[in-house]
Amino acid sequence: MSKQRIARLAVLDTAAVSDALDSLGIAGVLAGIRPLVPSVRCCGPAYTVRYRERGASAEFQGAPNYIDDVPEGAVVVVDNGGRTDCTNWGSLLTEVARSRGIAGTVLHGSARDYDEISAGPYPVFCTAVTMVSGKNRVELDGLQEPIDIAGVEVRPGDYIVADGNGAIRVPADKVDEVVSRAEQVDRTEAAIAAAVRQGSRLDHARATFNYARPWDASDG
Amino acid sequence: MSKQRIARLAVLDTAAVSDALDSLGIAGVLAGIRPLVPSVRCCGPAYTVRYRERGASAEFQGAPNYIDDVPEGAVVVVDNGGRTDCTNWGSLLTEVARSRGIAGTVLHGSARDYDEISAGPYPVFCTAVTMVSGKNRVELDGLQEPIDIAGVEVRPGDYIVADGNGAIRVPADKVDEVVSRAEQVDRTEAAIAAAVRQGSRLDHARATFNYARPWDASDG
Amino acid sequence: MSKQRIARLAVLDTAAVSDALDSLGIAGVLAGIRPLVPSVRCCGPAYTVRYRERGASAEFQGAPNYIDDVPEGAVVVVDNGGRTDCTNWGSLLTEVARSRGIAGTVLHGSARDYDEISAGPYPVFCTAVTMVSGKNRVELDGLQEPIDIAGVEVRPGDYIVADGNGAIRVPADKVDEVVSRAEQVDRTEAAIAAAVRQGSRLDHARATFNYARPWDASDG
Repeated sequence: MSKQRIARLAVLDTAAVSDALDSLGIAGVLAGIRPLVPSVRCCGPAYTVRYRERGASAEFQGAPNYIDDVPEGAVVVVDNGGRTDCTNWGSLLTEVARSRGIAGTVLHGSARDYDEISAGPYPVFCTAVTMVSGKNRVELDGLQEPIDIAGVEVRPGDYIVADGNGAIRVPADKVDEVVSRAEQVDRTEAAIAAAVRQGSRLDHARATFNYARPWDASDG
Repeated sequence: MSKQRIARLAVLDTAAVSDALDSLGIAGVLAGIRPLVPSVRCCGPAYTVRYRERGASAEFQGAPNYIDDVPEGAVVVVDNGGRTDCTNWGSLLTEVARSRGIAGTVLHGSARDYDEISAGPYPVFCTAVTMVSGKNRVELDGLQEPIDIAGVEVRPGDYIVADGNGAIRVPADKVDEVVSRAEQVDRTEAAIAAAVRQGSRLDHARATFNYARPWDASDG
Repeated sequence: MSKQRIARLAVLDTAAVSDALDSLGIAGVLAGIRPLVPSVRCCGPAYTVRYRERGASAEFQGAPNYIDDVPEGAVVVVDNGGRTDCTNWGSLLTEVARSRGIAGTVLHGSARDYDEISAGPYPVFCTAVTMVSGKNRVELDGLQEPIDIAGVEVRPGDYIVADGNGAIRVPADKVDEVVSRAEQVDRTEAAIAAAVRQGSRLDHARATFNYARPWDASDG
């Protein structure tokens, strides 16, 4: 896919992307994942991280090291099974991620250091917030392998878009088509909004601009 | 009921309204519904909308059209069974609702377009936020019919009050009595607060002003 | 324990405190309890309050009176079983608590009067928000007795620290050791952050500063 197409994905909101995926019959929502603080967004190819329950051990363990190898512009996507009782992200990873130009972090699991993270511009999306470390509770199970987030598979290099509505995955081989359709959704909605501002009833404007298939160019 | 009485309801908070309903043995809370953004409130007669799971169909479907017919000052109350996996409200409906002078929207279900809605003054209350459209997932099942919100029946014309605590229903034929009692609750609480500010212990002030029945005029 | 040690606990964040508790094998998180509004924190000895379901009665009942006897600097910790359908805290208690110099309130249960409480500086942490009073639904079951918050016992005089991550309990007889270890955790993390800012990879910095046991003084 082209760089230009990616730049166009980066300015689309998740609602238009979701409608475009709907039109193709593809599920994408990473359910239950919310922005840590309002009014942040991110977009980029997924760098996937999977955790598993730690096996029995008496030894104290550090956190897994992967952040140094995440490429600039990627979105770190962490599969910790949606756990709310321990964290996989905090202020130290946030600082490193920001300095490395990582686009954002999406956790099917929990974050800590809310106050530090919310003070800065780095976008974090998560299932929950707590202060309990994942260290010695979970351990790394895989890097850059396909992961399952609430029933949606995220493969390394799939695209992630996240905003105030949550996070959604676009399969890598569908990005071009999804961008085209999502942009058309936005054009359809803008045309309806403009008609309404000029005094049209919403039902008429929706009919005129083919709201049932907003990804199709209309003759409205 | 009188217009004046409605104006008085519009400035009461949900806590006082709830206490007044408690005094009459009436349940009112629309459980689990929260403001999309903090510090908004609304009050008005309910315009009810009920959705149902969509039957099998290969055809793409638009969203139901009802917003053009909602009267000014009403609160749109949507029953989508508390679903968190698809939405019944977004930025386009918000813009139309605002321009039509609709008082607010209360969703037993989900909203999308968080970033656009949170930028404006229109009050939305909902169970959850996601980006997945309800189009082709749910369909209209009824307008201006009684609906059930988490065990509380909302009939067209019942009053809704919503603020930072959530949303509550006042049956249409109880508004006068509820307003009288809720205002007395506020007077009782104000008297207790004033006494405490003047140095009284809270337990004494509560006893003096009959905190067990704050909707009764006290002799304190 | 010394007053100086308490002053040191009051500036630690819950993440460092949690790591210190982890190093000692002590559970402390009061699970599912979140700040009512972002960016507040509190610390102090617990004053414990336990509610129970109210027995059958036709009589209206006031709220229990205990706030006049809570000492300055304490954190009120309320066990209402995590109930989300009725409240144990509101604006009146907030005003009294603030004027008495109480450090904050942590509810395993719900608060009301969101708009009033969020306007002021008093820190409230809770499971949920609703407007329905606990009056006539629950009643006092014990004051200054051990309570159970989601599996963690809080005894009167145990220390509570709460911030944007949630709330955590430090057993009274462990405060000294926890403060020492949590401060060392903070020093370890600061050393790692400084190394990263100077160009180190995170994995190297973590190895150098013994991130697996951050409560141990390192030779890094």
